[in-house]
Amino acid sequence: MRVPYDTMKGEFCRVLTKKGLRKEKAELSARLFADASRDGVYTHGLNRFVKFMKSVDNGTVDLQAEASCAEYYGFFERWDGHRGPGNLNAYRCTERAIELAKQYKIGVIGLRNTNHWMRPGNYGLMAVDNDCIGIFFTNTVPNMPPWGGKDAKLGNNPVVFAAPNGDTPMLVDVAMSMFSYGKLEAYKREGKLLPVEGGFNSKQELTKDPSEILETHESLPIGYWKGSGISLALDLIASTLSGGRTSKMVGELPAETELSQTFIVIDINQFPDRDEILRKISDTLEDLKLAEPVKEGVPVHFPGEHMKQIREENMKLGVPVDEHYWQNVLDM
Amino acid sequence: MRVPYDTMKGEFCRVLTKKGLRKEKAELSARLFADASRDGVYTHGLNRFVKFMKSVDNGTVDLQAEASCAEYYGFFERWDGHRGPGNLNAYRCTERAIELAKQYKIGVIGLRNTNHWMRPGNYGLMAVDNDCIGIFFTNTVPNMPPWGGKDAKLGNNPVVFAAPNGDTPMLVDVAMSMFSYGKLEAYKREGKLLPVEGGFNSKQELTKDPSEILETHESLPIGYWKGSGISLALDLIASTLSGGRTSKMVGELPAETELSQTFIVIDINQFPDRDEILRKISDTLEDLKLAEPVKEGVPVHFPGEHMKQIREENMKLGVPVDEHYWQNVLDM
Repeated sequence: MRVPYDTMKGEFCRVLTKKGLRKEKAELSARLFADASRDGVYTHGLNRFVKFMKSVDNGTVDLQAEASCAEYYGFFERWDGHRGPGNLNAYRCTERAIELAKQYKIGVIGLRNTNHWMRPGNYGLMAVDNDCIGIFFTNTVPNMPPWGGKDAKLGNNPVVFAAPNGDTPMLVDVAMSMFSYGKLEAYKREGKLLPVEGGFNSKQELTKDPSEILETHESLPIGYWKGSGISLALDLIASTLSGGRTSKMVGELPAETELSQTFIVIDINQFPDRDEILRKISDTLEDLKLAEPVKEGVPVHFPGEHMKQIREENMKLGVPVDEHYWQNVLDM
Repeated sequence: MRVPYDTMKGEFCRVLTKKGLRKEKAELSARLFADASRDGVYTHGLNRFVKFMKSVDNGTVDLQAEASCAEYYGFFERWDGHRGPGNLNAYRCTERAIELAKQYKIGVIGLRNTNHWMRPGNYGLMAVDNDCIGIFFTNTVPNMPPWGGKDAKLGNNPVVFAAPNGDTPMLVDVAMSMFSYGKLEAYKREGKLLPVEGGFNSKQELTKDPSEILETHESLPIGYWKGSGISLALDLIASTLSGGRTSKMVGELPAETELSQTFIVIDINQFPDRDEILRKISDTLEDLKLAEPVKEGVPVHFPGEHMKQIREENMKLGVPVDEHYWQNVLDM
């Protein structure tokens, strides 16, 4: 089933307004959710909206709260999200980091006390729309064991890297676990094995079976010990820059909230070699595609390259929806 | 065979001085090489020294060149390495990034036209010795295929994250390939299989056999498509911030040189919540060690935790050396 983009956005907006969010903010939040589904990131669009509204209902997210600047240090600011909606907080901090980068070449924001930012690629695209490179990361509730351990002590701490490249920007959007729990559940629902090992089974063997990992909750860090270390580092950096909670401290709360996030924006337009930088980015991305493919007829693509095509298709034919989730929204 | 640390450092210094490097710089470079071996990073200490001296002899490294600041923007500076010794250039830029962080809380340096920085953990340790968090990365010559491709189009672009924690700092020091070529060769020499899959064989199957990967030169990015994307992003960021070469452009040179590197330092002492930040870091690291171990009796450790013990052992008993490399140095 497919639903027109505007219908989807309109429904999200209706629900948010009904809950008391003022129109301008409801429209922005609705757009951020709808954009995720439009661009093919269904897990963080419609499919997440229902869960988001539950977190509003149970008080984890304060729908009315707005992020505000807590400390100013020129190119670097610390913001407090006051447990407001994660996507609106992240949008605001990205916007502000872009402003700072326009002034200082690089803008850095540490955001504390925020909530799940939904699809981080949205913020990456805001950066590239302004000819900026964006580097964004967040901590999460502990949901991944450190290498060598069984207990979830680390977050999977997603990171986004975005770089402008005409109408097909580079967009790297990756969590530090090999597969998110959302992905594991999707594979399980479809009765499929993972394409590569994604965690441990109860015998502590690496497995491609999503059900086994969903049972042990022992998901695998990317690059084994390497992703385990990177995830740890991102958590310490995000909590230091923001003055907010570490993943461990988030795990001490009854629900995942009060997250720490980092927004770094580099404004290419402010560099003396602006044109050369843009050319270097585009040359690198074009060059990747020239690699001899492993599978004949399946050319190498760079991260984000296919998004434009998915977006165009979804705008033309409507955005694919899981009917169960869609009905949920209509009933709200 | 083991050699006293001071003897090793002294020999490095003797060779460098003989080549014309002035005493003060020769001593620093010798110390950086010896420190790597002392801390157990043998691949980037003694074992790399011989190769480094060859790159001096063949003109890839200009032993006399010194990094200098090319553009000042407050907390952010662009430096030119003038193809000088990579370890001295990186040392200088780390030192400067620490100075900037003392003034601005965060210091950022983009370094271009530099050479292999040898063991990046050295710079991480400089940061933590100053109560700073360090984030350092470099691009390299293309040596890793992008996900889905066979040709080396990406660098393995090592990254270091360091955070202070008393006398056992966190030190994450990882390349974006699962195993460096140095590691693959070491496993091959010892006739061992890799602990996890590290690349592709000629049938395009993932393999743990280091010889097969050394043949195809198709090493595996950490987290498959994820590390492929992260490596790409790091290259674009390092080349943008420095105004230097991308990995692709480095690949157009006859040898690996004119690299781009990024040095980001966060000075915790300049934050109003300094004590709380240090406590959060230490709490997180301590908590990791409480995870139930996968292998009974093998407790989880955090990255960098074992370094102190190795260092103490090597200072007491002497630094283990590969006799072949050591004889090489003595003969120089």
